[in-house]
Amino acid sequence: MAVNLVPPRPEDLFPVAGVELGFAAAGIRKANRRDLMLMRFMPGARVAGVFTQNSFAAAPVQICRRHLAVGPNIRALVVNAGNANCGTGERGLAAALATCDAAAKLVGCERHYVLPFSTGVILEHLPIDRIEAALPACFSTLAAAHWADAASAIMTTDTVPKGASARVLIGGRTVTVTGIAKGVGMLQPDMATMLAFVATDATIAPAMLRSLVREVADASFNRVTVDGDTSTNDSFILIATGASGAAEIGDDGTEYRALREAIEGVATKLAQAIARDGEGATKFITVRVEGAADGDEALSVARGIANSPLVKTAFFASDPNLGRLLMAIGNAGIPDLDTSRVNLWLGDVQVIEHGGRAASYREEDGARVMKPEEITVRVDLSRGDAATTVWTCDYSYDYVKINAEYRT
Amino acid sequence: MAVNLVPPRPEDLFPVAGVELGFAAAGIRKANRRDLMLMRFMPGARVAGVFTQNSFAAAPVQICRRHLAVGPNIRALVVNAGNANCGTGERGLAAALATCDAAAKLVGCERHYVLPFSTGVILEHLPIDRIEAALPACFSTLAAAHWADAASAIMTTDTVPKGASARVLIGGRTVTVTGIAKGVGMLQPDMATMLAFVATDATIAPAMLRSLVREVADASFNRVTVDGDTSTNDSFILIATGASGAAEIGDDGTEYRALREAIEGVATKLAQAIARDGEGATKFITVRVEGAADGDEALSVARGIANSPLVKTAFFASDPNLGRLLMAIGNAGIPDLDTSRVNLWLGDVQVIEHGGRAASYREEDGARVMKPEEITVRVDLSRGDAATTVWTCDYSYDYVKINAEYRT
Repeated sequence: MAVNLVPPRPEDLFPVAGVELGFAAAGIRKANRRDLMLMRFMPGARVAGVFTQNSFAAAPVQICRRHLAVGPNIRALVVNAGNANCGTGERGLAAALATCDAAAKLVGCERHYVLPFSTGVILEHLPIDRIEAALPACFSTLAAAHWADAASAIMTTDTVPKGASARVLIGGRTVTVTGIAKGVGMLQPDMATMLAFVATDATIAPAMLRSLVREVADASFNRVTVDGDTSTNDSFILIATGASGAAEIGDDGTEYRALREAIEGVATKLAQAIARDGEGATKFITVRVEGAADGDEALSVARGIANSPLVKTAFFASDPNLGRLLMAIGNAGIPDLDTSRVNLWLGDVQVIEHGGRAASYREEDGARVMKPEEITVRVDLSRGDAATTVWTCDYSYDYVKINAEYRT
Repeated sequence: MAVNLVPPRPEDLFPVAGVELGFAAAGIRKANRRDLMLMRFMPGARVAGVFTQNSFAAAPVQICRRHLAVGPNIRALVVNAGNANCGTGERGLAAALATCDAAAKLVGCERHYVLPFSTGVILEHLPIDRIEAALPACFSTLAAAHWADAASAIMTTDTVPKGASARVLIGGRTVTVTGIAKGVGMLQPDMATMLAFVATDATIAPAMLRSLVREVADASFNRVTVDGDTSTNDSFILIATGASGAAEIGDDGTEYRALREAIEGVATKLAQAIARDGEGATKFITVRVEGAADGDEALSVARGIANSPLVKTAFFASDPNLGRLLMAIGNAGIPDLDTSRVNLWLGDVQVIEHGGRAASYREEDGARVMKPEEITVRVDLSRGDAATTVWTCDYSYDYVKINAEYRT
């Protein structure tokens, strides 16, 4: 199902010194399926995160925010799939805390050093007894090499586990960056139904880590959209263990930029993997908007195209339905848009010129560039210098099927 | 396909004195299918309209705005289906004006007394020669009784023609209100892909007519959404011929309110008919939001629910997926929403209480109220006194099918 996406091989995901991962089948929603994951960090590891903007933030998101407010030092995180522990009130908060308690006992720390994460069905109570029962199995499988296994343990409707890795030289030391993520429905920036965990063995000052996690999210996960919906549980977590021995990064100089580039690279691969594995996806679409007056305007147009159900069904049909692209641009709410200056390309074919059908455009060229599994839409608004890129997928019969039958 | 929607019988649509309608098969997109409609108004009839907010307003919309800027007196309007004449530049404007010229010649007036409307495929040039050739046939069928025929001549992917009629006593005189409309994809308030024409034989001052058309649009067509997309051609036109002999309405007193109520009733029936005939619709959904701080907030939440693809696929599956409803409310961007005060009912069953699953809720009750073809969602935000209602339909396999195969 996923578009040009293969599972990461275990050897593709480099271990990060100071990070171990374990997994188990807790039977949270389905039997005999990995659905629980534990990550343990060495003492002194620092963590920062960004979370959903949905008003109904799930219980684990609330607890994450609370624990990170105590300080950046985190010893473990627990992720369960199958149940989102959202809309569950006080009992849900108690269940998230009980998860932390159980992990803290195994790891040997206080519970505010543990972060909980949940993904799955909303408004059902978390079967905390099953999580407590399975956490020792997670603990007993903790190993630095288990990134690929961990990626498979956090999946819900994902068809392919998602992981990426990079190495970069920082101050003469090799620093490793490895991450895993899960999608794939209820996806829209700020954030997607998405959990992503990226770890590095670099050392970075807490304030810099907090700005880094936001910058990376804006450049990667917040550029992905599947259906314009935003989940209650979205979280992106960045862990810096400091185990590489590289000097601490305390300002936004060369070393910060080198580290950011490596982390952004990993996060962007994960973000694109989420779009490639969008529910029912048959196409991977890159929407590039240039010539905007500012970044917000570029993003409005890009998201307008990427989220339009009519555009997405046209991509599914490989139909160069240019009118729907125009319609989506026109709906982005750009004040005083001079439509006669709008140009648009599908792949290398200019299809819109001065706001109308390009004189050179032939339907067969449009059909040719719409056929492949990967399609790029490029828009030039001719208003300024700002640009942005958004990744998405098409809407297929299977999108409806997956979402209509998700609970049955 | 349409949900509880039957075609209007000719006798259900009362003639409006001063209005005649004619139709023809011009072969604009498909052969042997009605696709051209002419309405002629008696001299002195006044017209006001509201149009799409899409930046790529189609050529006919631009010409309508230009002609209505000259004055409210209009003698005819021409509607073609099959081609939207949008994204067609100067040649598109010339084609829209040529349509006006051809109609003006038949009716015997200058061209700025004619309004043109187009609906269908975008970015293709209007076959103006076919329209010119078929307009005499429209003219020769002009008759006051032809509302139902006219409704069928403006359809695109509509499966059922849409019309409604009402009579009301104003100042001792019987006034008639009759309207027709077409949908059905690319639908979102401000406006939908939607053409709607409502005529009355009441007499109303031009300034009052202009405010009336906005008030009615806000209470009816702007409360309908199918897929959150807004077309480039949406238009709602209100015609007041004055032929009833009732005294002119010059202020917003009792008579204005009585007329508005009758017109709103007709417009609401047409708006709901559009949602009932949404592309691939199997359910008609009414979303009612109460207890909002203001009307904008109520509308944000209602549209958030009505436009969420995840909510719409759950309705298609008759699945009481409460979590998606919570998610959609949480995404409406209401600042400081106290989620613990949110209550929600599906039909007569309370499913959300204090932001979580209602204590009394049983899954079988949820399943029971999700089964019927007509479902009401009612949300109480418990923040204030504002309320609103939005109508929509579900997302089915056929939505994807219709939109993927529209041009093939």
